[in-house]
Amino acid sequence: MTDAWLDEISWGADGLVTAIAQDAGTGRILMVAHMNREAAALTASTRIAHYWSRSRQRLWRKGEESGNTQRVSRLDLDCDGDAILMQIVQSGGIACHTGRESCFFRELRDGVWVTRDPVLRDPAAIYGASSKKERS
Amino acid sequence: MTDAWLDEISWGADGLVTAIAQDAGTGRILMVAHMNREAAALTASTRIAHYWSRSRQRLWRKGEESGNTQRVSRLDLDCDGDAILMQIVQSGGIACHTGRESCFFRELRDGVWVTRDPVLRDPAAIYGASSKKERS
Repeated sequence: MTDAWLDEISWGADGLVTAIAQDAGTGRILMVAHMNREAAALTASTRIAHYWSRSRQRLWRKGEESGNTQRVSRLDLDCDGDAILMQIVQSGGIACHTGRESCFFRELRDGVWVTRDPVLRDPAAIYGASSKKERS
Repeated sequence: MTDAWLDEISWGADGLVTAIAQDAGTGRILMVAHMNREAAALTASTRIAHYWSRSRQRLWRKGEESGNTQRVSRLDLDCDGDAILMQIVQSGGIACHTGRESCFFRELRDGVWVTRDPVLRDPAAIYGASSKKERS
């Protein structure tokens, strides 16, 4: 596999592209994050989702702490090349660091963001007792 | 409806938030764009998707040229508040300015972005003879 496909991605001024993880089975959107060139290359070569953590400023293999890795079955690119859509299988069924299936667990109802989805597993059980802002 | 929900969104340094349009019926991701505060407020109040066009630097009601508007049935916010997911009904069945159903019409196969999806309608027929880079 050559790297020419990486050159077709429209990397932002920060060197990142938006990456969306969609459950390959249900179609549910599980999370949105970012990739740098290295993360995209690793995702394609390993078929395991890698991101660039903006808060931690480092490469981030999703699930490296939680074990909730994402197996990637397909990568799509949008028309202007600045967003990647992944079809994934979410190990553990939990993508969100809050212990929910999806990061999109709040819904706008009558002008209020209402938490709609249950916590499936206590984050303390997923990550241990430490309390970092961003988990994986 | 108060504006408090808008304050819970983590607007970027550029005043924008990522907005994803998902077909409410099929679950397919149709496009990814951005909203500023005004676009988000208009989307919620009118239930028609509005975006901020970065290339044109102006508010953009999706479909204002093409007629392919997006009716919004649900707005979700992710855990860190910097991405909005919309469930939409895509008028005309075409979200992409290339005349395709979805902007994600290219798929990575053996290291090459392969155009997978057909053009459903000639963009010239959608937008007329003018040739602007970004259509709506």
